[in-house]
Amino acid sequence: MAGELGEERRERWEERTGPVLMLAALLFLVAFGWPIIEPDASTTVRTVCWALALASWVVFAADFVVRIVLSNNRVHFVTHSPLDVVLVLVPMLRPLSLLRVLSVIGILDRQAGRASRGRVALYVATSSALLITVCALFMLQAERGRPGSVIDSFDDALWWAATTVTTVGYGDTYPTTGTGRAVAAVLMFCGIALIGVVTATVAGWLISRVAEEEEAVDQVTQRDVEALTGEVRALRQELAEVRRRMDGDTPGA
Amino acid sequence: MAGELGEERRERWEERTGPVLMLAALLFLVAFGWPIIEPDASTTVRTVCWALALASWVVFAADFVVRIVLSNNRVHFVTHSPLDVVLVLVPMLRPLSLLRVLSVIGILDRQAGRASRGRVALYVATSSALLITVCALFMLQAERGRPGSVIDSFDDALWWAATTVTTVGYGDTYPTTGTGRAVAAVLMFCGIALIGVVTATVAGWLISRVAEEEEAVDQVTQRDVEALTGEVRALRQELAEVRRRMDGDTPGA
Amino acid sequence: MAGELGEERRERWEERTGPVLMLAALLFLVAFGWPIIEPDASTTVRTVCWALALASWVVFAADFVVRIVLSNNRVHFVTHSPLDVVLVLVPMLRPLSLLRVLSVIGILDRQAGRASRGRVALYVATSSALLITVCALFMLQAERGRPGSVIDSFDDALWWAATTVTTVGYGDTYPTTGTGRAVAAVLMFCGIALIGVVTATVAGWLISRVAEEEEAVDQVTQRDVEALTGEVRALRQELAEVRRRMDGDTPGA
Amino acid sequence: MAGELGEERRERWEERTGPVLMLAALLFLVAFGWPIIEPDASTTVRTVCWALALASWVVFAADFVVRIVLSNNRVHFVTHSPLDVVLVLVPMLRPLSLLRVLSVIGILDRQAGRASRGRVALYVATSSALLITVCALFMLQAERGRPGSVIDSFDDALWWAATTVTTVGYGDTYPTTGTGRAVAAVLMFCGIALIGVVTATVAGWLISRVAEEEEAVDQVTQRDVEALTGEVRALRQELAEVRRRMDGDTPGA
Repeated sequence: MAGELGEERRERWEERTGPVLMLAALLFLVAFGWPIIEPDASTTVRTVCWALALASWVVFAADFVVRIVLSNNRVHFVTHSPLDVVLVLVPMLRPLSLLRVLSVIGILDRQAGRASRGRVALYVATSSALLITVCALFMLQAERGRPGSVIDSFDDALWWAATTVTTVGYGDTYPTTGTGRAVAAVLMFCGIALIGVVTATVAGWLISRVAEEEEAVDQVTQRDVEALTGEVRALRQELAEVRRRMDGDTPGA
Repeated sequence: MAGELGEERRERWEERTGPVLMLAALLFLVAFGWPIIEPDASTTVRTVCWALALASWVVFAADFVVRIVLSNNRVHFVTHSPLDVVLVLVPMLRPLSLLRVLSVIGILDRQAGRASRGRVALYVATSSALLITVCALFMLQAERGRPGSVIDSFDDALWWAATTVTTVGYGDTYPTTGTGRAVAAVLMFCGIALIGVVTATVAGWLISRVAEEEEAVDQVTQRDVEALTGEVRALRQELAEVRRRMDGDTPGA
Repeated sequence: MAGELGEERRERWEERTGPVLMLAALLFLVAFGWPIIEPDASTTVRTVCWALALASWVVFAADFVVRIVLSNNRVHFVTHSPLDVVLVLVPMLRPLSLLRVLSVIGILDRQAGRASRGRVALYVATSSALLITVCALFMLQAERGRPGSVIDSFDDALWWAATTVTTVGYGDTYPTTGTGRAVAAVLMFCGIALIGVVTATVAGWLISRVAEEEEAVDQVTQRDVEALTGEVRALRQELAEVRRRMDGDTPGA
Repeated sequence: MAGELGEERRERWEERTGPVLMLAALLFLVAFGWPIIEPDASTTVRTVCWALALASWVVFAADFVVRIVLSNNRVHFVTHSPLDVVLVLVPMLRPLSLLRVLSVIGILDRQAGRASRGRVALYVATSSALLITVCALFMLQAERGRPGSVIDSFDDALWWAATTVTTVGYGDTYPTTGTGRAVAAVLMFCGIALIGVVTATVAGWLISRVAEEEEAVDQVTQRDVEALTGEVRALRQELAEVRRRMDGDTPGA
């Protein structure tokens, strides 16, 4: 299990368990969110949700333990995976790891930077929807039933999240508790980032069109220079021929 | 009617019916919006508007049927025109197709990326105005007369739409119904996109000026390389001449 | 007064009267704004302000008439100066022409695109301040004393303008009249444009640094190609010399 | 102490005292903020905070005096360091100088423009946090206990600052005093700048990836041209050899 072999085995494990973990994260989101959305859910439903959430968490934890075991340098792996440690300790954040499956699409690689705007739009839309859902769940849990609270149902919470992430902020719904304000602050700054990503994507589109043409000019120049080099090489051979001829002449002169 | 011929006929049809459909969409917008703006309109007016809206819809549907008939592969055409299917089934969204006439201007082609900022500004302004109008109509229909609603006239609805699309969101007007909130969410995200497009256009302007100069440098280099290639070619001919001369000399030596 | 001569005379006039018109616009802003800010101003003050505003307007109108007279094609000049016509007919918008003096700085020319970020910042700050002031004046005039209005002093109006142009929109101050809402809509969209310009400037800064280096590489290439061309030219002369020598040889052979 | 020597000594002083001044600024922030956050703090605590703030100020002032003394041209130094003069006269702004230590990281140099996005994110996050804290302190001091004020604790002030800098502006907390509104206006415009920097950074990232490839093409061209120049130089030597050979021939002809 020494050296490269261990790392390879861990990577193969991570590749194969990826979809399972995604499913577990989705299950956790539902099992975590259901009792928040339905506060009047029966004890049976609550118990089932709690069991499912626990089961999902066991899957996350087991996966993490296997990955530690498969690592060459286990201490190094644990200390260099702070995000994984946090996600096992605070499973409520786990659903956000669903975004990782989207990053597989690789929106930020150069190819995508030019070609598939649709994929970027899909990514931004999906991550916004997921972020809004998770933040709305946290907000509902933090605010429902508190004195002075104006967020009382999942609908209200979703509406609050939409007005916040777009930085519209009507002020008809807003958090009143400390926890709620903390969740809101996270979502607000995500809103700023959202504006940034949308703008940068549109700008990147415009720019890549300009850059494309520029590159075309550059590549023509490069081809021209290559052709010229061939020309000069032919010239040199010609001259070498002349010289050989002269060398042949001289003795015969 | 086989092969290319069919597609060509459909395209010619689409080209020729474009203006008619635009007029029908505009008519639909008026016929759809009028009874919403004037809730006290007489039954006659309502009937006329309803008849006009129906007539517009018949035009849309007839056009779609003709295009299906003119297609080579009819099933393929229907399954690959989801937007057209939606616009026939949900004619309320039809006015948004007015934006399509604007896209004809082709703001996103490279030429426009450099030259006509005025056209981009015009496009952004027109589509914002259209979007604000359509969203305000939907909002008014959803909110008017509901208990607790603060949007009670088309003026209020337009004002709400302006504060929303710019993400200002004073909070003096905001939706209270589920439908209203859904319309608002669409407009909010359009606001984010609006900021993105405005910013990217200004940035694109600045960048294209920089890129233009860069390209100028590149093109000078390209011209230089071409001149150099000519020079080398002349040199080679010169050398060939020398060699011929030598060949001529040798026998005569 | 025929041909080029007329245009030249008009341009010289415009150059020389520029500062006078700026002063008149500033005077108009003060004379127009004072009675709005101080509703309890004495009749004397009101009369003086009214007289000053009238005097400024006479200056604008006289300048426009002189420019018409100095033009070669007077009808063409009038029909192609819609902004000037509007500014003479609606003098309240005149203070916005103060921005024109700032555009003299030429922030959008290429040089500025790279070098003087301070100048762009100054321009954005000054035009924002001017826009906020003018919009606050209009808002105060539209809202003060109306039933249900929450903007009652110039302080309130300035505060409203700041929350609006930055798209923050707390909602503690907002227009309630139709005129006020129209002014607010203008300022909101200016806020969107402000975000766009600030972002594009920062982005332009980052990009110009990247582009600068790129251009440096391009210019090195260009210099290299020029050096190479010199080299090849020398080579050709050398070869010509060889040929002349050979030609000289041949007869003497 | 004449000429370069003086400047060098001042710069060495500035380099060595940098960390001390940062500590003093941090101390000042705490000593200045504590009595604002805890209005019921005992007289002892207030006195200690006051003494610490005074001590920090003495450090700032002493440092400035030493730098004046070490300068070659003292009058020139004072007139060209307006920021230092302001920070000594208005020590409440001193904590903002903490941002200077971050600028040491050099986020805006070209290298960073490409490589370490993490550092830029860290810089934006730290400066936002510092700005929010300082503005919240000022706001709390301006608003607490005023009639009609809704900002009554440091929590409220922080929450207000977060909703403001992100331009969300719910309107549940907002300033009511003149001072508070001035602080808010500063923070609002910083919010616009924040959006600008975040967007430009994301856009810069996308662009630098495109530019990188472009530069690669350019550098290949440059290398090609250099190789070609070597080729031509070899050709020239070859020709010179031919000519020398011919020259050798001629006398022997």
